[in-house]
Amino acid sequence: MKLTDIVQKNDTLGGKLFDWATIALILYSVLTLTIETLPNLSPTAVQFLEVSEIVVTVLFTIEYSLRVATSRPKLKYVFSFYGLIDLIAIAPFYLSLGFDVRSIRLVRLVRIFRLLKLNRYTKAIDRFGRALMIAKEEIILFVLATIAMLYLSAVGIYYFEHAAQPEQFPSIPHSLWWAVATLTTVGYGDVYPITMGGKVFTFFMLMLGLGIVAVPAGLMATALTEVRKQESREKSG
Amino acid sequence: MKLTDIVQKNDTLGGKLFDWATIALILYSVLTLTIETLPNLSPTAVQFLEVSEIVVTVLFTIEYSLRVATSRPKLKYVFSFYGLIDLIAIAPFYLSLGFDVRSIRLVRLVRIFRLLKLNRYTKAIDRFGRALMIAKEEIILFVLATIAMLYLSAVGIYYFEHAAQPEQFPSIPHSLWWAVATLTTVGYGDVYPITMGGKVFTFFMLMLGLGIVAVPAGLMATALTEVRKQESREKSG
Amino acid sequence: MKLTDIVQKNDTLGGKLFDWATIALILYSVLTLTIETLPNLSPTAVQFLEVSEIVVTVLFTIEYSLRVATSRPKLKYVFSFYGLIDLIAIAPFYLSLGFDVRSIRLVRLVRIFRLLKLNRYTKAIDRFGRALMIAKEEIILFVLATIAMLYLSAVGIYYFEHAAQPEQFPSIPHSLWWAVATLTTVGYGDVYPITMGGKVFTFFMLMLGLGIVAVPAGLMATALTEVRKQESREKSG
Amino acid sequence: MKLTDIVQKNDTLGGKLFDWATIALILYSVLTLTIETLPNLSPTAVQFLEVSEIVVTVLFTIEYSLRVATSRPKLKYVFSFYGLIDLIAIAPFYLSLGFDVRSIRLVRLVRIFRLLKLNRYTKAIDRFGRALMIAKEEIILFVLATIAMLYLSAVGIYYFEHAAQPEQFPSIPHSLWWAVATLTTVGYGDVYPITMGGKVFTFFMLMLGLGIVAVPAGLMATALTEVRKQESREKSG
Repeated sequence: MKLTDIVQKNDTLGGKLFDWATIALILYSVLTLTIETLPNLSPTAVQFLEVSEIVVTVLFTIEYSLRVATSRPKLKYVFSFYGLIDLIAIAPFYLSLGFDVRSIRLVRLVRIFRLLKLNRYTKAIDRFGRALMIAKEEIILFVLATIAMLYLSAVGIYYFEHAAQPEQFPSIPHSLWWAVATLTTVGYGDVYPITMGGKVFTFFMLMLGLGIVAVPAGLMATALTEVRKQESREKSG
Repeated sequence: MKLTDIVQKNDTLGGKLFDWATIALILYSVLTLTIETLPNLSPTAVQFLEVSEIVVTVLFTIEYSLRVATSRPKLKYVFSFYGLIDLIAIAPFYLSLGFDVRSIRLVRLVRIFRLLKLNRYTKAIDRFGRALMIAKEEIILFVLATIAMLYLSAVGIYYFEHAAQPEQFPSIPHSLWWAVATLTTVGYGDVYPITMGGKVFTFFMLMLGLGIVAVPAGLMATALTEVRKQESREKSG
Repeated sequence: MKLTDIVQKNDTLGGKLFDWATIALILYSVLTLTIETLPNLSPTAVQFLEVSEIVVTVLFTIEYSLRVATSRPKLKYVFSFYGLIDLIAIAPFYLSLGFDVRSIRLVRLVRIFRLLKLNRYTKAIDRFGRALMIAKEEIILFVLATIAMLYLSAVGIYYFEHAAQPEQFPSIPHSLWWAVATLTTVGYGDVYPITMGGKVFTFFMLMLGLGIVAVPAGLMATALTEVRKQESREKSG
Repeated sequence: MKLTDIVQKNDTLGGKLFDWATIALILYSVLTLTIETLPNLSPTAVQFLEVSEIVVTVLFTIEYSLRVATSRPKLKYVFSFYGLIDLIAIAPFYLSLGFDVRSIRLVRLVRIFRLLKLNRYTKAIDRFGRALMIAKEEIILFVLATIAMLYLSAVGIYYFEHAAQPEQFPSIPHSLWWAVATLTTVGYGDVYPITMGGKVFTFFMLMLGLGIVAVPAGLMATALTEVRKQESREKSG
């Protein structure tokens, strides 16, 4: 079996193993980068994470080199989307050798986007794309309606609550935060109306808004069902 | 190309450009009016916003004059819905020249309703209307059921919590606010039951109420899917 | 036109007017009973509400007498569901003439259940009933699953949080309140996990529980759509 | 009627009574174990619960013995899933006779899993399983997308809020708790963004995330409807 087959293809045994090893390495590296942010880590843990990071980066560097070397149209991989992500994923390590910058470290988390390559493997994502295509127009309409709804809610609550709670609703942009937390029904409780007018207004906006925010999910669900039916018809037809 | 074609029609190049310029101007003006409400703006920013407002209003005034001038049945536009909105959108500026009234300023936000003219452009809104027509009766029923549910929840929680929390649940109208925040699952946390009876009651109301509040969105989703199918059948039929 | 036709039937002009007048009176009386609970009402308002209540009760008493008098199998109405509700709706007034009991007043709110008679008028409720019939088994299953889910969540969070927050999670029944507020996504914020174990447990319960709680609404929506289709087929068939 | 028929079968009168008696006993015992956790129970209540527990355990022990005795391939029941659960349900009682361990008591709650045997009785669970089969791929995809979404939200909010609220967002794992509470729209209000960047980021994550979290429920609903249709076709076909 040639190296090219292992690195570039995923229908051979070697290719599959190479792919799965890469995925495992990505997940492991994302996990360690996540743990690294924990405060009060023991010195042993910090040391382990540092060594682990060196090993991971060396492995990613080898993988990157292999991909560059086996790329058929010479520089195709280097300038592809995943080529750039792979480079960004290892570059901070080499850059930070000279000067230690904490903020650069998080950049290495771009590695997670490499999991998107899994695209190729699942038929479900393709199905999802077709469902999105079917319901495209309605979803765009509902997203626009959601934005309009959020804006009008912010203007209204600003009008009703600004005088009573100047600290909580100092301006329309600030009121937008309330609109987001309310119409999505998250309702943290950091800002809420206290005037009668504001409460009645919130009621009407919620009655209208809940439907608008919830419909797109229902549309996607029915569209996905439709795509599934089409496929089974194509198979049997 | 005649002026009438540009102002009144939207299927010519000039008409399209005129329409898009108007939309851009509306969005820009709504944005500046929003930013204007921010506290602690620098004097430069305030000055910029004031000049910007003058320019925008002059442009809207020109647009209004053009629409009045090119309106075929002479005063048709002036007394139309959009004609009135366009007038309300510029009037506060000229009125506030004499006496400065802050509250009048917000009135200019009616400009945003001019975006509703976009109606004409999207087929999706028409589809939405037909879906609403299909599910009309059920949606009315569920809206009535929601109102009844909210009222009964308010009466019940008032009965259970009034004695324990007279500050939070002083009356049935006040308890309605709790009912709205709870049955929509927003749950700010400003009012909530503390008695055993109130908590058990909340559980039953939520079990019943969640369904009632969530069904209309599902109905709209399936109705929209139906309309889409009808259309594709009409096309192919 | 005979009195019987007006009181007992609803397909004559007199009958319709009588029905609508009754509905208006019910809504008016429910509204005044609601306002009555407001604290700090002016003496004038209190007096107006008292007079209003006397007038309303007299009118309901007349209506009740008419219904009893025109009931064909003599006592059929008196012992019917609505006959009892109508009696309960006026009885507290006469009982409280002798001794003033505040708590008895709220009983008069049973009047609102008289609106259920509207059943007869809308075809939508019948449709709703048929949809409930179609999805009956699944909905029962999901309600049982919801109860099991709530109970298991309460046991779990009690296990994880009892030691850390004995005040908030003193027992499994108390923890049920947390489970209700969390799985319905209301999230008041009066109780929430603070331990790592409790948080991870909450995550898994939410992943499982959200689906279980949300599916019944979707089921009702699709069942209602089905009923609508059946009806239009019956009509055209 | 033979003992075997009563214990092992559920289509005879005796078998049905035996099954229902067992279910009632399970529910009663779970209820008492739940009440047992309540603080400040009166000595009488504690004594009643203790006696009740002895009676229940003796009954369960008899049932266990009967099942072991009537099991056809001799030890089949002892090593089956339900046999183990039945053993775990009674074992803590006999173990705690010697040494009193409070924590072991909760183990007896495994009894609740015996209700899963109800599986056999309802066709709805089977239908549910088939619906899960139909929508399997999409649901897996959405669960993966949910996890990715939660992780990216945690990373993002950590980036925006860590500096402003080091207490609330000390690390990415801690930020995950915020992501869970927000994207499920529970929104307890114990942690929420306060910076402009964090709020805008929350808005975008919610817009994307709400759909992803809500779609699986819709998928299950449509899949369940499909299964119901298939069944009625099979019946009539």
